[in-house]
Amino acid sequence: MLKTPANIALSPDGSAVRIIDQTLLPGQLRFLQLREREQMVEAIKTLRVRGAPAIGIFAGYCVYVLAQSYGQEEFFPRLDSDCDRLVSCRPTAVNLARQVNRMRAAAHAMEGSPAGEIVQALGQQARAIHQEDIAMCLAIAQAGLDLLHPGDTVLTHCNAGPLATSEYGTGLGPLLLAAERGVDIKAFVDETRPLLQGARLTAWELTNAGVDCTLICDNMAALAMSQGKIQAVLAGCDRMAANGDAANKIGTSGAAIIAKHYGVPVYILLPSSTIDMDCPTGADIPIELRDGEEIRSLWYEKPMAPEQVKCWNPAFDVTDHTLITAIVTEKGVLRPPYDQALRALFGKGETR
Amino acid sequence: MLKTPANIALSPDGSAVRIIDQTLLPGQLRFLQLREREQMVEAIKTLRVRGAPAIGIFAGYCVYVLAQSYGQEEFFPRLDSDCDRLVSCRPTAVNLARQVNRMRAAAHAMEGSPAGEIVQALGQQARAIHQEDIAMCLAIAQAGLDLLHPGDTVLTHCNAGPLATSEYGTGLGPLLLAAERGVDIKAFVDETRPLLQGARLTAWELTNAGVDCTLICDNMAALAMSQGKIQAVLAGCDRMAANGDAANKIGTSGAAIIAKHYGVPVYILLPSSTIDMDCPTGADIPIELRDGEEIRSLWYEKPMAPEQVKCWNPAFDVTDHTLITAIVTEKGVLRPPYDQALRALFGKGETR
Repeated sequence: MLKTPANIALSPDGSAVRIIDQTLLPGQLRFLQLREREQMVEAIKTLRVRGAPAIGIFAGYCVYVLAQSYGQEEFFPRLDSDCDRLVSCRPTAVNLARQVNRMRAAAHAMEGSPAGEIVQALGQQARAIHQEDIAMCLAIAQAGLDLLHPGDTVLTHCNAGPLATSEYGTGLGPLLLAAERGVDIKAFVDETRPLLQGARLTAWELTNAGVDCTLICDNMAALAMSQGKIQAVLAGCDRMAANGDAANKIGTSGAAIIAKHYGVPVYILLPSSTIDMDCPTGADIPIELRDGEEIRSLWYEKPMAPEQVKCWNPAFDVTDHTLITAIVTEKGVLRPPYDQALRALFGKGETR
Repeated sequence: MLKTPANIALSPDGSAVRIIDQTLLPGQLRFLQLREREQMVEAIKTLRVRGAPAIGIFAGYCVYVLAQSYGQEEFFPRLDSDCDRLVSCRPTAVNLARQVNRMRAAAHAMEGSPAGEIVQALGQQARAIHQEDIAMCLAIAQAGLDLLHPGDTVLTHCNAGPLATSEYGTGLGPLLLAAERGVDIKAFVDETRPLLQGARLTAWELTNAGVDCTLICDNMAALAMSQGKIQAVLAGCDRMAANGDAANKIGTSGAAIIAKHYGVPVYILLPSSTIDMDCPTGADIPIELRDGEEIRSLWYEKPMAPEQVKCWNPAFDVTDHTLITAIVTEKGVLRPPYDQALRALFGKGETR
């Protein structure tokens, strides 16, 4: 019983992408219908749609919707231009580029076909991306739940739930599946500054699903762990390097370091499409820097910092693979050494 | 050149305590004159005045101001009642109880004297507490600055500056002294959720003093350290146990664990009056739990979490002594093993 409505869908006639405007949650549940490229770009950049898998699904539908207006002659120049524009919106998550390029490749494979047929194929491809994500999330949720024990309380960071993906989510999947099955797994929810995805989105999703959750500030996790309140850390991932280093929302690496200090296991849950085997280590993952105004003044009635103060606002950090207890994918659970396990997963090099 | 005005003072006629209302900073610099006990209690509980040493100084003046209205007969019952009420306001910092009890003892030592004389002695005692703090802060700032190197960037957490103490502060003292002397020490400032003392107070004080500072969210410190941006962590302390465990603003222990992971030294700066030798370890320090509304809704224009969501809001945590590189007091710099060093400092047991 997941009461969170679908966050990404095509409009009934297929001419627009419908999303929940996540910037308004939990105060308002408002849907947006997007038809124009720059509306889509704005939605990604301002995080109306967010979460690595969700952005990939959204971008797939965007390419399909945009392609409906291309004429036969201009089809591929416009497709390539729109795809490049979409990919440029956010640098860290691999899913955006991966799914856009999958759409682009599907179209280019049909060069010479009538535009209408290519558009139809793009629609199928976009729906396939979405359906695959749903199946992956369920498999991840199941594999993650198998790592937990009834009575456990887990720490979540950012939002890796239905809003960030499809249906069960990745990092929140085990919690939602447990609630559905009546298994007692509770959550401590990091609020996740500066954009408060934990407070606004995760707490909302978990409350909707009937999960017992307790909201904390990010800096309270260490005390909670020192008091034995947390049995596992669950997080999603925006891009994983070939050695298992995991880029995720800023603060994940700190939570993982603290968890290691207190002997609490850290599980990173992600679809295998988020693993970038062309990226050797976390040092090769670009970290998006966002506007300091998100720290200084967003959300506030009163001035919360001197107006002129400098801010540093990285949106992600990299959790070193040595801090990760297990990597949970739709294809199963990986244990260290991750470079070998990941090569085996993708059929590259020696198996274990 | 410390441009932050005195945060605690007596009114010119000595009949009221004047404080800066810290809840309105940095938007408004407003002074309050307090004469009534419940005004004083409210000011402590709502953090209009805050910081362990500042609360101690404030409470000293409060006892003096309140005692002016006691008649000869009722003097000690009213004194004891008011002292008990003030001590009950906040449980974690030792300075509040220590300075109130110092005032109380000074009065009780004069039992039998005319009320006017006792009041006069209380005024001297309160001013002495304040003057001693000023001298201690300067000594701490100097000792702390000696541990840093020109070009260093330090991480600060919460606010241990002039607003939390007197003049130089404790944790911020080395930065303010460096600015005064033209030594290049920069700061990364943790915003310090939920009450944002870093963003509101530390960033304001450092900017006022001309220190180059960069505001970050608490969960960004790990990335900053991983990139080599931080050469030391400086923090104040609300109560230190006899083994060196240090209770300070929630989030300090997490920052210290992360600093240890990255090999960054952690310095705890405090007046020796904050050390509680009657408290064996950090486990014996009571941790104040505050209203969850501070996490859910304070500061916000829009709802930032589901209204009904549970919150856990501890105001402090305990940094284990094994995470502390050095303890900086007005009497010098202590190195591990801290149990021995602290006993020596207080002349108890063997010296090192």
